[in-house]
Amino acid sequence: MNIGLMGFGVVGRGVYEIVSKREDMRITKVLCLEDISLPDAQAVKDYRQIVEDETIDTVVEAMGGLHPAYEFVRAALEAGKHVVTSNKALVCGFYDELLSLAREKGLRLRSTAAVGGGIGWLSELERSRRVQELTEVGGIMNGTCNYILDSMTRLGLDYGQALKQAQEKGYAEANPSTDVDGIDTWHKLILSMNVAFGVRVDKQTVPVSGIRNITAQDVAAFKAHGRVCKLISTGRRTEGGFTGYVQPTLVEAGSPEAAVPLNYNLITFLGRFSERMSFYGQGAGRYPTAYNVVQDLVDVLSGKGFYAPYGPAVQADNGQTLCYYVRGSWTGETTQDWGCGVITGPVAVGDMHAWLADHPDAFAAGLR
Amino acid sequence: MNIGLMGFGVVGRGVYEIVSKREDMRITKVLCLEDISLPDAQAVKDYRQIVEDETIDTVVEAMGGLHPAYEFVRAALEAGKHVVTSNKALVCGFYDELLSLAREKGLRLRSTAAVGGGIGWLSELERSRRVQELTEVGGIMNGTCNYILDSMTRLGLDYGQALKQAQEKGYAEANPSTDVDGIDTWHKLILSMNVAFGVRVDKQTVPVSGIRNITAQDVAAFKAHGRVCKLISTGRRTEGGFTGYVQPTLVEAGSPEAAVPLNYNLITFLGRFSERMSFYGQGAGRYPTAYNVVQDLVDVLSGKGFYAPYGPAVQADNGQTLCYYVRGSWTGETTQDWGCGVITGPVAVGDMHAWLADHPDAFAAGLR
Repeated sequence: MNIGLMGFGVVGRGVYEIVSKREDMRITKVLCLEDISLPDAQAVKDYRQIVEDETIDTVVEAMGGLHPAYEFVRAALEAGKHVVTSNKALVCGFYDELLSLAREKGLRLRSTAAVGGGIGWLSELERSRRVQELTEVGGIMNGTCNYILDSMTRLGLDYGQALKQAQEKGYAEANPSTDVDGIDTWHKLILSMNVAFGVRVDKQTVPVSGIRNITAQDVAAFKAHGRVCKLISTGRRTEGGFTGYVQPTLVEAGSPEAAVPLNYNLITFLGRFSERMSFYGQGAGRYPTAYNVVQDLVDVLSGKGFYAPYGPAVQADNGQTLCYYVRGSWTGETTQDWGCGVITGPVAVGDMHAWLADHPDAFAAGLR
Repeated sequence: MNIGLMGFGVVGRGVYEIVSKREDMRITKVLCLEDISLPDAQAVKDYRQIVEDETIDTVVEAMGGLHPAYEFVRAALEAGKHVVTSNKALVCGFYDELLSLAREKGLRLRSTAAVGGGIGWLSELERSRRVQELTEVGGIMNGTCNYILDSMTRLGLDYGQALKQAQEKGYAEANPSTDVDGIDTWHKLILSMNVAFGVRVDKQTVPVSGIRNITAQDVAAFKAHGRVCKLISTGRRTEGGFTGYVQPTLVEAGSPEAAVPLNYNLITFLGRFSERMSFYGQGAGRYPTAYNVVQDLVDVLSGKGFYAPYGPAVQADNGQTLCYYVRGSWTGETTQDWGCGVITGPVAVGDMHAWLADHPDAFAAGLR
């Protein structure tokens, strides 16, 4: 296997290092805009030097971001090359287009590192589907948010302090919006639902709310009521179809989710036969992410294509009701007063997200 | 694929049910000593009716116990049939013999359900080995012990009450020795070490102590010191070789292990690149166990043999030291007094297990 590696940042360097010790594959060209020199591979600055190279059969995309990653991956597929990527925004955003193109060309497309970093999550969904119907996927999919919420819960920091600490440790970016507003989790949930259920979920029907507005007072109130706040994604088969959403969620202290520390992930599927299966590990970082990129390369070598069939387009229905903790000018039914916030009566998930869109300073977390 | 199913108890019936809905495999004969009649398969009472049937290519052993499971599985391999089993005592006890025979005959032998029930543990070790060296395996591998310890910790029950409740729920057998004395966990650890490290561990060098002697007073002392007791297995690469042991272990309250409730398992591997990866799920039960038996059948169909090479014989060296909580007539160094027990200075793991063998009424738990 001759590989063209696009991107030589945190993940790309890890992939290069792991592959360089293997006999069954080699990286022959690396796309990198900086001047680098590598012992065994040619550094190139124009992606066409990779996609037009007939000796390269597989492209690894480790650049991140939507553009030009999309254009480069599309060009690689059009040139007849298998693609492995760790880019959740790309695979989620262009799911239809990239899958169709890979299918049409008879090419393999894999992205295990896109959800859960070092956790073999998408590959285990693929394995599980061989024997059972999956009924639910979701969990803690973003290490940055978990780090912030964990610091607030265990150390009593306020949101700003916790975010600053996460930035200093390299867990959060200077502009943390993709993480703290839940967008990263939302990409991962949609990709997981598509693979687990064999569908193409309409992204616009999956609402998301993040953790930006949480305060130390909220966290203290949760603690006093035996709860811990986590950013949790939920995708579920329902009687009539599917439901899917991302939101802060109050889990019970002592539950497996509550015990997830630092920047770890805990992702869960439920299946008809296996029942609940959860996966705990490093959801990001150079070596864990590169590890699953190389696992994908081994799978490409052994002939494995995408994880699941290209299924029907579906919409998420978020009519199901939950009780919420809300801090803000909530005027609906309430059942308890937790001081700085109230507990609502049952509210449809979709309605709560619509209310939040109209109340940008409010904070809401579902009870479970 | 034509399957002969040996055993029609909890797991066997689950396998029958799942396979009956599939197109790619069918169970043609079932070995069952009771009189049963099945719509699609012939019930037989003599195992030779399966091993001598040339139309059967694969045998599923779901009887449990060492004998006659060993004789039947051996006969099946000798007759040229692939074998899938959920029997950890069998695969651990006759590892050398069964693996050699399967290798010699070019047959596939799989036992994913033997460790972790519904968790794809051995199969994930197999996948992981493709890309990295594994450095550690272990965790909570026995649901019965976890149920008892969890009831003692959360509900304040004493050992006898918790055991009785586990028996009433069907989680513990009338004679619970295999579970509470750690033998089941010991089998699973040795099998996991063999697969993860590609070796054949000398079982006699892996010490085991169980939870039979724990009291409500011990648990109260752990709680007062921010600790939770779990039965934990540990297998690790060391500089010079390997270490391996099973013992009650005091983990920190709030850690992922401490949060494992009821009869769930939490099994972990550490790898050079992936770092820590943990798997949480149902370690037993009809459908979870049958699920992984059928996964193995799918893998047999696709040509997968055993998980790891038949490696060199190795011994575990348990000279590494730990501090222990000990209740009993401990005369060595102590660093703290927890009331009903003391905390020892550093003691070699092997020495503590030797001391426990001489003090059958004592209870010891390693600190971590």
